Amino acid sequence: MELLKKLCSIRATSGDESAMTTFMLDHISKNSKDWKVKPEVLHGDGFQDAIVLVFGKPRTAIFAHMDNIGYAVSYKKNLVRIGGPRGESGWKLVGSDSKGEIECTLKVQWLWAAGNKKEELKYRFKRNIDRGTPLSFKPNFRETEKTVQTPYLDNRLGVWNAIQAAKNLENGIIVFSTYEEVGGGSVQFLAKYIQEKYGVKQALISDITLATEAIKPKDGVAISMRDKGVPRQSYLRKIIAIAEENKINYQLEVEDAGGSDGTVLQHAPGVWDWCFIGPPEKNYHSPNEKAWKEDIKAMNDLYEVLMREL
Amino acid sequence: MELLKKLCSIRATSGDESAMTTFMLDHISKNSKDWKVKPEVLHGDGFQDAIVLVFGKPRTAIFAHMDNIGYAVSYKKNLVRIGGPRGESGWKLVGSDSKGEIECTLKVQWLWAAGNKKEELKYRFKRNIDRGTPLSFKPNFRETEKTVQTPYLDNRLGVWNAIQAAKNLENGIIVFSTYEEVGGGSVQFLAKYIQEKYGVKQALISDITLATEAIKPKDGVAISMRDKGVPRQSYLRKIIAIAEENKINYQLEVEDAGGSDGTVLQHAPGVWDWCFIGPPEKNYHSPNEKAWKEDIKAMNDLYEVLMREL
Amino acid sequence: MELLKKLCSIRATSGDESAMTTFMLDHISKNSKDWKVKPEVLHGDGFQDAIVLVFGKPRTAIFAHMDNIGYAVSYKKNLVRIGGPRGESGWKLVGSDSKGEIECTLKVQWLWAAGNKKEELKYRFKRNIDRGTPLSFKPNFRETEKTVQTPYLDNRLGVWNAIQAAKNLENGIIVFSTYEEVGGGSVQFLAKYIQEKYGVKQALISDITLATEAIKPKDGVAISMRDKGVPRQSYLRKIIAIAEENKINYQLEVEDAGGSDGTVLQHAPGVWDWCFIGPPEKNYHSPNEKAWKEDIKAMNDLYEVLMREL
Repeated sequence: MELLKKLCSIRATSGDESAMTTFMLDHISKNSKDWKVKPEVLHGDGFQDAIVLVFGKPRTAIFAHMDNIGYAVSYKKNLVRIGGPRGESGWKLVGSDSKGEIECTLKVQWLWAAGNKKEELKYRFKRNIDRGTPLSFKPNFRETEKTVQTPYLDNRLGVWNAIQAAKNLENGIIVFSTYEEVGGGSVQFLAKYIQEKYGVKQALISDITLATEAIKPKDGVAISMRDKGVPRQSYLRKIIAIAEENKINYQLEVEDAGGSDGTVLQHAPGVWDWCFIGPPEKNYHSPNEKAWKEDIKAMNDLYEVLMREL
Repeated sequence: MELLKKLCSIRATSGDESAMTTFMLDHISKNSKDWKVKPEVLHGDGFQDAIVLVFGKPRTAIFAHMDNIGYAVSYKKNLVRIGGPRGESGWKLVGSDSKGEIECTLKVQWLWAAGNKKEELKYRFKRNIDRGTPLSFKPNFRETEKTVQTPYLDNRLGVWNAIQAAKNLENGIIVFSTYEEVGGGSVQFLAKYIQEKYGVKQALISDITLATEAIKPKDGVAISMRDKGVPRQSYLRKIIAIAEENKINYQLEVEDAGGSDGTVLQHAPGVWDWCFIGPPEKNYHSPNEKAWKEDIKAMNDLYEVLMREL
Repeated sequence: MELLKKLCSIRATSGDESAMTTFMLDHISKNSKDWKVKPEVLHGDGFQDAIVLVFGKPRTAIFAHMDNIGYAVSYKKNLVRIGGPRGESGWKLVGSDSKGEIECTLKVQWLWAAGNKKEELKYRFKRNIDRGTPLSFKPNFRETEKTVQTPYLDNRLGVWNAIQAAKNLENGIIVFSTYEEVGGGSVQFLAKYIQEKYGVKQALISDITLATEAIKPKDGVAISMRDKGVPRQSYLRKIIAIAEENKINYQLEVEDAGGSDGTVLQHAPGVWDWCFIGPPEKNYHSPNEKAWKEDIKAMNDLYEVLMREL
């Protein structure tokens, strides 16, 4: 899990993902010679900071977003959210601006404004930080025999899962997307490109979901039957059947909120079947996201069979 | 109205419309030989569960969505909404899962959670239902001399209206879309396909609106001047002029909320003029939707002249 | 500023922009012969009421929306908003319907409905106005040595800024868009067209922002680092560097709400870098929008260098 640890330490708030792009291109370039099939690597002009890997004759695409949530400095000592991180006083944030490296502390306070309780996010630091500077959670990787806990399991674990799938992949596409945490911005054109060029119409969303009373850690990888978006149920039934046949430890999730790159695909002008598949984590969107290794293993196994059989 | 009755009995919650697709393809195949022009029928791969009929040299497309609202089983005895159905204890719901046919009862209860009133939807049934199973309103078609009342007037009446229009249609397109009740998911690619292939830029949205204090049953078919979306007013004025000339009984609707396949067209990357035209109904999004035959007649008449003259 | 005064007097609520289209086409036709490069003018079929000007070999496009906020007559004496205008009793509104010219007065009242305070917008006029009629703020242009105050600075000032940029433009595109105030409806297809035909991937959004405690009049043109949408930060940094080098008086804005044609580009299926750049104004979305000439000058200067250097 050294690779996952490294991935979780990279700062790549939505809209500013180039550090992930650079790391991933380097990793792919060094490792893809050992994969069963060496993929074509699409990136750069026309792809912004996203990366697309094409293996053989693809039928299905894995989408794993590389960006992370965080905070941006607005005015004075104030912060605005990038995506939907929770906020708790004392969390450590890191970044850099024109004056150098930053390690500061989040401070959450509540005000009464016009009869309503209003949250204010601030940073505490020895100096002022440049306006607009993005801040990420400070790396803090904790591994035990059964669990892994770190900022940004969401979605570096999804990225890591896609890399595991790459190793034995013969036919398929892997998309490392950007902008997911702010509702999308690259999947729209990436989906268009791969559908028009390769005719791919099936997608798997490699991402992380919330542990809840119903979706519990150690109960297997979650196959989402719906969130805010509703995947076509015939595609879902095909996926569930493959999970059954292959004796994957999975659980079915049914929510009416939450979105992902899948929601973007549903509303894109392409013909997409999509399904969100990922492990549940505790402490969602905090620096203490925690997942269980047995669920992660189930995720890896399910992606492997799905990419082969779908 | 035997056809309408049949249409209203089919279960096709958003994302799971294949029963409607099968029925419609069969109906079109059996009846289109008696239509003035036999259309080209597009469906299957690249269309998901939607159907497109192409007549002659099309200038205008009718969009009628085939999907219906309903509920999906989530955890324990809980339900989540598919689209925006209301909910009242006692309503009869039907569906099927791995253990067979289901006829169960909706139960609505209110909880206090964190100081807020929160609604809970549950089903009552002799056994547990498979997670994710979609449930539809139980068929209950009631016809009088002047009215028709049934679950799913919205939008089987819009589909039925499109079939009436098909009979004498010489030039035009009819799109039977999916996913409308959850904010769209097929119109995006259907619109792209027909605009790129046939150059069609004009749309009519064959759907049902709410009866209100201002939009009353028996006052004619409603031409929506706007809802959440704002159609181009020059197109609207053309439609109103045609309705006037042809002495159609119509009323003008002006709302600032509500959406349809028209809203999807407005935000799609195509060049679309669109207008929502349909009768008002009482008991919107309940099992007791009710419309008046004279408004339905006005709808049929208006679509016929519009498809000829626009 | 005679041209700006004229632009601010034209009625062009979202969805009904043809008066602006006509005026702009006439203005372009009369004046473009004096511009450094005479642009190709795209409009009419396939562009709805929008206009696209193409100069030389374009790399960057300016988007300036022509539509304005307002109100539409709904039922009885009621109004619904077109876009998000504020509302204050006494504001003068103008329009026209089948019975002739209209100059009426806005009346705002508050009702208690089901325990909630609810706003009602009405018009006061000697006669009833046709249902659906759009109303705009009555022209009221006020210029001083240092300021300009008028309804519809947003966005006739953005349009005017684009026309200033046109005079010396050698390579670039200017898009006069429609529908911006209601969340978009033309930028989707305009962006697709110019990207597919000219390969343009860079956009500047010529529009007006709110003066706030942090973004103050006379502190320069605002470069938005983000609002609801998040532009790619590498593009933003390029723009800021150019503003610095050219000693433009600018200020950096960081908000988490508000959208523009930029948000539409972010979610469109094209590969767009975009940035919102415009002066702050007081009395946002009222008939008394006010901006400072030195900020407007900074805006003009910044657009000129950006269109040359980006």
